Amino acid sequence: MQKVKVGIVGGTGYTGVELLRILASHPQAEVTMITSRSEEGVALADMFPNLRGVYDLRFSVPDASKLKTCDIVFFATPHGVAMSMADELTSAGVKVIDLAADFRIEDLDVWSKWYGMKHTEGKLFDKVAYGLPEHFREQIRNAQIIANPGCYPTSVTLGIAPLLKNNLIDVTNIIADGKSGVSGAGRGANVAMLGAEMSESFKAYGVAGHRHLPEMSEKLAQIADKPVSLTFVPHLVPMIRGMENTIYATMTEDMSQEELQKLFEETYKEEPFVDVMPAGTLPETRSVKGSNMCRIAVYRPAGSSQVVVTSVIDNLVKGAAGQAVQNMNIMFGLDETLGLQQVALLP
Amino acid sequence: MQKVKVGIVGGTGYTGVELLRILASHPQAEVTMITSRSEEGVALADMFPNLRGVYDLRFSVPDASKLKTCDIVFFATPHGVAMSMADELTSAGVKVIDLAADFRIEDLDVWSKWYGMKHTEGKLFDKVAYGLPEHFREQIRNAQIIANPGCYPTSVTLGIAPLLKNNLIDVTNIIADGKSGVSGAGRGANVAMLGAEMSESFKAYGVAGHRHLPEMSEKLAQIADKPVSLTFVPHLVPMIRGMENTIYATMTEDMSQEELQKLFEETYKEEPFVDVMPAGTLPETRSVKGSNMCRIAVYRPAGSSQVVVTSVIDNLVKGAAGQAVQNMNIMFGLDETLGLQQVALLP
Amino acid sequence: MQKVKVGIVGGTGYTGVELLRILASHPQAEVTMITSRSEEGVALADMFPNLRGVYDLRFSVPDASKLKTCDIVFFATPHGVAMSMADELTSAGVKVIDLAADFRIEDLDVWSKWYGMKHTEGKLFDKVAYGLPEHFREQIRNAQIIANPGCYPTSVTLGIAPLLKNNLIDVTNIIADGKSGVSGAGRGANVAMLGAEMSESFKAYGVAGHRHLPEMSEKLAQIADKPVSLTFVPHLVPMIRGMENTIYATMTEDMSQEELQKLFEETYKEEPFVDVMPAGTLPETRSVKGSNMCRIAVYRPAGSSQVVVTSVIDNLVKGAAGQAVQNMNIMFGLDETLGLQQVALLP
Amino acid sequence: MQKVKVGIVGGTGYTGVELLRILASHPQAEVTMITSRSEEGVALADMFPNLRGVYDLRFSVPDASKLKTCDIVFFATPHGVAMSMADELTSAGVKVIDLAADFRIEDLDVWSKWYGMKHTEGKLFDKVAYGLPEHFREQIRNAQIIANPGCYPTSVTLGIAPLLKNNLIDVTNIIADGKSGVSGAGRGANVAMLGAEMSESFKAYGVAGHRHLPEMSEKLAQIADKPVSLTFVPHLVPMIRGMENTIYATMTEDMSQEELQKLFEETYKEEPFVDVMPAGTLPETRSVKGSNMCRIAVYRPAGSSQVVVTSVIDNLVKGAAGQAVQNMNIMFGLDETLGLQQVALLP
Repeated sequence: MQKVKVGIVGGTGYTGVELLRILASHPQAEVTMITSRSEEGVALADMFPNLRGVYDLRFSVPDASKLKTCDIVFFATPHGVAMSMADELTSAGVKVIDLAADFRIEDLDVWSKWYGMKHTEGKLFDKVAYGLPEHFREQIRNAQIIANPGCYPTSVTLGIAPLLKNNLIDVTNIIADGKSGVSGAGRGANVAMLGAEMSESFKAYGVAGHRHLPEMSEKLAQIADKPVSLTFVPHLVPMIRGMENTIYATMTEDMSQEELQKLFEETYKEEPFVDVMPAGTLPETRSVKGSNMCRIAVYRPAGSSQVVVTSVIDNLVKGAAGQAVQNMNIMFGLDETLGLQQVALLP
Repeated sequence: MQKVKVGIVGGTGYTGVELLRILASHPQAEVTMITSRSEEGVALADMFPNLRGVYDLRFSVPDASKLKTCDIVFFATPHGVAMSMADELTSAGVKVIDLAADFRIEDLDVWSKWYGMKHTEGKLFDKVAYGLPEHFREQIRNAQIIANPGCYPTSVTLGIAPLLKNNLIDVTNIIADGKSGVSGAGRGANVAMLGAEMSESFKAYGVAGHRHLPEMSEKLAQIADKPVSLTFVPHLVPMIRGMENTIYATMTEDMSQEELQKLFEETYKEEPFVDVMPAGTLPETRSVKGSNMCRIAVYRPAGSSQVVVTSVIDNLVKGAAGQAVQNMNIMFGLDETLGLQQVALLP
Repeated sequence: MQKVKVGIVGGTGYTGVELLRILASHPQAEVTMITSRSEEGVALADMFPNLRGVYDLRFSVPDASKLKTCDIVFFATPHGVAMSMADELTSAGVKVIDLAADFRIEDLDVWSKWYGMKHTEGKLFDKVAYGLPEHFREQIRNAQIIANPGCYPTSVTLGIAPLLKNNLIDVTNIIADGKSGVSGAGRGANVAMLGAEMSESFKAYGVAGHRHLPEMSEKLAQIADKPVSLTFVPHLVPMIRGMENTIYATMTEDMSQEELQKLFEETYKEEPFVDVMPAGTLPETRSVKGSNMCRIAVYRPAGSSQVVVTSVIDNLVKGAAGQAVQNMNIMFGLDETLGLQQVALLP
Repeated sequence: MQKVKVGIVGGTGYTGVELLRILASHPQAEVTMITSRSEEGVALADMFPNLRGVYDLRFSVPDASKLKTCDIVFFATPHGVAMSMADELTSAGVKVIDLAADFRIEDLDVWSKWYGMKHTEGKLFDKVAYGLPEHFREQIRNAQIIANPGCYPTSVTLGIAPLLKNNLIDVTNIIADGKSGVSGAGRGANVAMLGAEMSESFKAYGVAGHRHLPEMSEKLAQIADKPVSLTFVPHLVPMIRGMENTIYATMTEDMSQEELQKLFEETYKEEPFVDVMPAGTLPETRSVKGSNMCRIAVYRPAGSSQVVVTSVIDNLVKGAAGQAVQNMNIMFGLDETLGLQQVALLP
């Protein structure tokens, strides 16, 4: 079988280098083109020393006519770029996975408000699927464009979906307290993300609202099949990779710890990348560092009507590049785990 | 004026060395005795290299008769030790501050259940005050024994008290999502707290319940003057010092962001160690590293009935040794800020 | 072809879990037995959460008769254990790789002095090879026991060997300034390695001498074919994985930067796991995090007779488990890179 | 006595905020003016949250005529700025301390080569002293301009001076292997210093030469009273504050460990900020975090002619702002330790 020819637009950030790391061990895919306006002509290995000896590629200027030689193009770009090329590429039969937010929110008024630009490509949405395989696999299989989910939405949605789907919680008051490592802020020069600033400190951020909130609200509502009211506060953790969300909801039905445990295990028993932790244990982010796993625990604090879910992912893998490769595998009918079987790096 | 003579029982842990650091710059106190069974005869400066040239003391074996030469004795010990000596010391006119939990919970059945030992000193509770000066200052002034609050209870109580006191929130469903640096776990050898284990990872812990929960429940109920139901999930942050709590509650009265801001500023306007952040900003733990400040922000997420409070302290200072010195200052009629005016170390 | 059956004795430390991580992706090897006296019966996945779903093994008590069913046994144990079982295993045709130090030093008096125990197995040394493939590959191919090198000796020897082999430096005064991440100290409970102790600090250690010094001295002398005098000072870096050595020597022949660069590139041009960095660049440890690569730079400071070499490895991979698997591949005539092609995790 | 009126030019970087932190507890000095072109009008407390409630100052545009109202002006600026204002200020009787490099190197050709600009103020050098009090105290007392030393030169010079002054080592081949925390790189936005880049990594840098090398070479030669040949390789440590230098030299006289220990203790016995560690121990950077101490150990590796010195400082305190305040104290005839008695923050 011929390998899938992969193009990457915007390969100089953390999701770009992570795509390259993952695809290096993918037996059925080959990166044939990587673009960056600012780094034209630079060898990949000169920018990312971990790739020395792995790739013999140089950055080229993005050019839709050349990208059409690929079978699939990943956009690891700022918001708005995928939107500008998706029509041309998909019309030529090239599949598109956008790791930015261009196709994540179907309500384009909401999208425009949060992303501060006009959305011009509403017409493409019938080609689009939201790339969370565990809950939208069929749509992904048939889509030409994948809106690869944000990292917080991936972790939160996987954690809360079993409760929403089974109508077990009060949807008017769900709380997600999110924590992310600093790679989530990207590779741009930024004083607040200097090591001397963010190390040895912890803080909430995004008081004015985080763009992942409307994305989560829309997807959770689709899963619950009714509107959902979510309070979401993200925090910055002094580590490179990893994300944890602790989710609080009020149960509308009284289920025991055992019943909840069983529900979660049932929901995800066929999923290769969701691991429900044994009752009485909690996941730590290092257990997924460098891997595509999401590990989830559910528990009921004694003497309360609350249910608490904790959900961890590597924000750059299941929260970005790994999930994108998982989506690619589904789109091309490949084994969904190809390239994604690396064990987390511990310690 | 003669200096207050200070004894420290159990000075080999992090709260012990932090007491020593703080008292080194206190103009009205002098450490005259420090004890440790295991380190008898060892020079302080050999155990804590930052104290080289600062103290010329050696650890001695704890001995109540010798401790009676002090004006005040701090217990930086495991739970149960202060209880065993408090009666003898206070009967001799020596004041006691317990940095452990022996006197934190008035309901001794609850205490015994969480701390796994019998409480033998219920008779002393009329000498005890809970050492959170911002809400129990008068009691502290007149007490002979201070139950120095836990770190989580300090940060959470300071954050939520203005809402409780003014009867503004639904007390049946308060959520505190807590995050602590690793010094909170103490200086005992422990595989889970090795640098190679806890660095670059984040996790919730204490699924079976954290001992600070009953302490908070009791104190919040005292402040609210009615029972309070709190869901509390602590998390471990890969940093040495610092604690943040994000607190979620449902408002029972509709107050605007501006009104809430004003309420918090009014509540704490005379307090030297509570700083209400300007509206629209959030505190970070590094802004209090090494300092006795608690910084708090309050905000209302758009379109919801929730109020969110974030509260940061240095777990070893306002969460332990600094607050203990603040309590000592109050007990001895000293300026409450003596020894506590160090600026946080940033970066 | 049948897979190589692998046993691991002492699998509860960092080299044990790293062997498991690496072997999980090895297409020609299968871990069939893992032992630990203290953890008998415990599932691997319960001890190391990154291995959940990867291995279905439990720790068993080490038993030579059962280990003989393996083709090869790795010892990830304290010093002295491999020595006690190597004769029995190799006599039964089982190959042995010792990741501890039992067979690293041929001069057994030196060994006994540094390791504080008698060496009883001198008779086995004709079955032994020092497992640094780049300089001892033929011996490894024919050995039954591999002394897997220490992490510092691996990095230092790879860095300095090209100069020693070509007789270019003064061997009476070589300096190696070594720096290691904390995973090198192992997974034992140890106050000095707590996150609250080692984070945000840097120090030299081992003033009384480090056990890797006599190992390096012996191997460097073998490579130079004359005695070598090495000053070695190790340091502890506040990070989990990674090791860097900066090596200083005085040139006895005047070679230019270009000639040195060429010499190093020639020396290692066929080696899959040694990467000579381009002139003018220096390697960073993160470029090898999780990978079996050693990256080396050589340069001549302007206006001096010194040559400086910097050499980085992941102490747990090329410095331990990865090199052990590389040695296994050589011993079994497999492609030397099997299981070892993972790209370093960056960021 | 009236307080010394202090102006700070360029107060938005790490040395600026550190000056402010230290001066906040100085009983005889008062910051009356702080300037920044880019932050004009911004309140100090809005830029540095640790200073909330401590200072009520705002940044103003630097203006020599206003700065003349100060008794002393600290320049925490890029290279070249102090040079442009020093003549005017000192002519008006204002003392100047430059924390940048404008007056550190007397050989102006060397200076121009390394700093890439012309030095226009050679005429001022008779007002200048090199601000390393332990070796240039008399000159500092009488100077109007202080060249505050670089961080590496401070640590290396304090470590090696006892050997140089007593003519005990071969000056043709001294090696300093330096390691610095990331705050040394400053507060500018810079991809390489992002937390996601520098955390969990260690590397040598400055292969083309570091500007502190010529500074050290000149000062060490002054102390030795003959030319000195130094090989210097700096490294970046994944921590915020702290610097360690390990210095290697060949002894020309055979001194025992005991004699060396005694020599170092004698040299620094009157110095409040240099601490010679007990024989057999090594200093760690956390023992000086936030403090003005330099801690030094000297030892002789067994069976070699080498002497090894390790020297640690906080790069922002003894390596910058603390030493500047120490110099100010000397210039104004104050107790040299004023404002500088804070105990290092440990853990």
